[in-house]
Amino acid sequence: MTTLHAHVVLLVGGVGGAKLAVGLANVLPPGALSIIVNTGDDFEHLGLHISPDLDTVLYSLSDLANPQTGWGIANDTFHAMEMVGQYGGPTWFRLGDRDLATSLARTSMLREGKSLTEVTRHLATALGIEHAVLPMTDQSVQTRIETGDGCLAFQEYFVRERWQPIAQSIRFEDVENARPSQAVQQALGEATLIIFGPSNPFLSIDPILAIPGIRDTIAGSPVPCIAVSPIIGGQAVKGPAAKLMAELGHDVSSLGIATYYQDLLDGIILDTVDVEMCEEIEKLHIRAIARNILMTTLVEKTELAASLLQCIEEI
Amino acid sequence: MTTLHAHVVLLVGGVGGAKLAVGLANVLPPGALSIIVNTGDDFEHLGLHISPDLDTVLYSLSDLANPQTGWGIANDTFHAMEMVGQYGGPTWFRLGDRDLATSLARTSMLREGKSLTEVTRHLATALGIEHAVLPMTDQSVQTRIETGDGCLAFQEYFVRERWQPIAQSIRFEDVENARPSQAVQQALGEATLIIFGPSNPFLSIDPILAIPGIRDTIAGSPVPCIAVSPIIGGQAVKGPAAKLMAELGHDVSSLGIATYYQDLLDGIILDTVDVEMCEEIEKLHIRAIARNILMTTLVEKTELAASLLQCIEEI
Repeated sequence: MTTLHAHVVLLVGGVGGAKLAVGLANVLPPGALSIIVNTGDDFEHLGLHISPDLDTVLYSLSDLANPQTGWGIANDTFHAMEMVGQYGGPTWFRLGDRDLATSLARTSMLREGKSLTEVTRHLATALGIEHAVLPMTDQSVQTRIETGDGCLAFQEYFVRERWQPIAQSIRFEDVENARPSQAVQQALGEATLIIFGPSNPFLSIDPILAIPGIRDTIAGSPVPCIAVSPIIGGQAVKGPAAKLMAELGHDVSSLGIATYYQDLLDGIILDTVDVEMCEEIEKLHIRAIARNILMTTLVEKTELAASLLQCIEEI
Repeated sequence: MTTLHAHVVLLVGGVGGAKLAVGLANVLPPGALSIIVNTGDDFEHLGLHISPDLDTVLYSLSDLANPQTGWGIANDTFHAMEMVGQYGGPTWFRLGDRDLATSLARTSMLREGKSLTEVTRHLATALGIEHAVLPMTDQSVQTRIETGDGCLAFQEYFVRERWQPIAQSIRFEDVENARPSQAVQQALGEATLIIFGPSNPFLSIDPILAIPGIRDTIAGSPVPCIAVSPIIGGQAVKGPAAKLMAELGHDVSSLGIATYYQDLLDGIILDTVDVEMCEEIEKLHIRAIARNILMTTLVEKTELAASLLQCIEEI
């Protein structure tokens, strides 16, 4: 399996994608997995550079993640945040004390002139992670959600408003000035398999694809590109994927996902509950394979990853 | 007493001065006390603007201070610092989780364009402090210590090297470009009494006096200026005051302090153990009054403050 897939490139956002990253990290040797992570959610807060998706991936791969919340570090304390609240500062974005340290270390290294890619490599190594965790770009790109109530920055939409406003469109500010880092280009160039994690297509995968060059590289790549569906039985496992699909006029299903990525995908892994969709998807010339994709336990994450690598031989 | 001393201005650095500030705050009504605080120790660390002396004064006045260490907040946790350490970041400057929040809030407000004076007023108000806590200036001034081993930034000297290198001279970088804030000018202009707290003369009081205009204003002021000695029986109560006095060629005593500030002082309060120095000091045309100046308890702080205000009538 690992000789067939000498270099797997996984595109992800936060929680869902991070679960698959954990599974793949468990079945692939160091050096055989690169995880390209959305940074469209990154923002400045309390003077710190916060990278929510990078942190979720880092904490998941180092077994620090809080499985209850999907963000932050398990058993973290919130003493700094409580005090920030006493000063009348913003507390809607909850940063635990240990979680805060990640942003402090990141911000400090960025201010010293290191790139986000270099900083992330440093943090990953310090956490004992042996696989490459790559920010999609070293430039600043900000995901903006146009809603009936005006344009919201990502964290305002996602955390402060708990993704309740109706989205009309989504854009990635400054994406035209961004470029994939050398590490991302090299990973895609050496890829023997490209996977879209079960992440939000609009908020997690699209920002990565919007970086000039990335979509074209994947579309033109001779290696298989497969998606793991973020939709199970018409529902998102977590977060606003299903809600956004409906608001933006897509069919809320794995068929909708396959259709949305039609020009890029060779295959899609969907859940066994959606097996009846396979036929319709294959009409799009996308191989559809049904598996248990709800990754609750480490065993399930690892099984899906192993099964996914085996599937490629069918595609 | 409070009608006689309608507006007391206290110049301080960290722990020693903060104790007297607590005493004065206990005996003076809101509006009758302004505390001008050294910011020559301020520095950027982990991307944060840290103001050690301002924090010590704020925490002391709001009863949050850690009496054991002299810095930080009592019963604070250090989870963020431990994690910064795991990332290989600097941990020699110990910031507790709640303490960190003060620097986060400060840095965040400074980045929004607020002045250090405005930020400090905001923090003080949030902590329930009713007296004016004023940074000596809104500009950046950095205390540097020339040692046999080269020039050290203040925190390198004080915290990292635990003030062990031998000091040859001390300078205040960029002080020529600093000016007293309007609040400091107004406080000095309205002062009916000026007090130098029992703070390090070279590291705490001198930086304040070095801000263009402050020394001249105090020298030319018609109101009494008195110092509370930081030296008791030839020893500093805390920190490197005695060591520095010796290294820089001064007599390590309250007489040495009186001599050092000779052109500014009308009086000095020294400890009863040093009462035999009074005669020598009075030859300098400085009134010397012996009191118990080792402020261990709140009662002692308050008694010294009350006694100090009464002394003025003797001067």
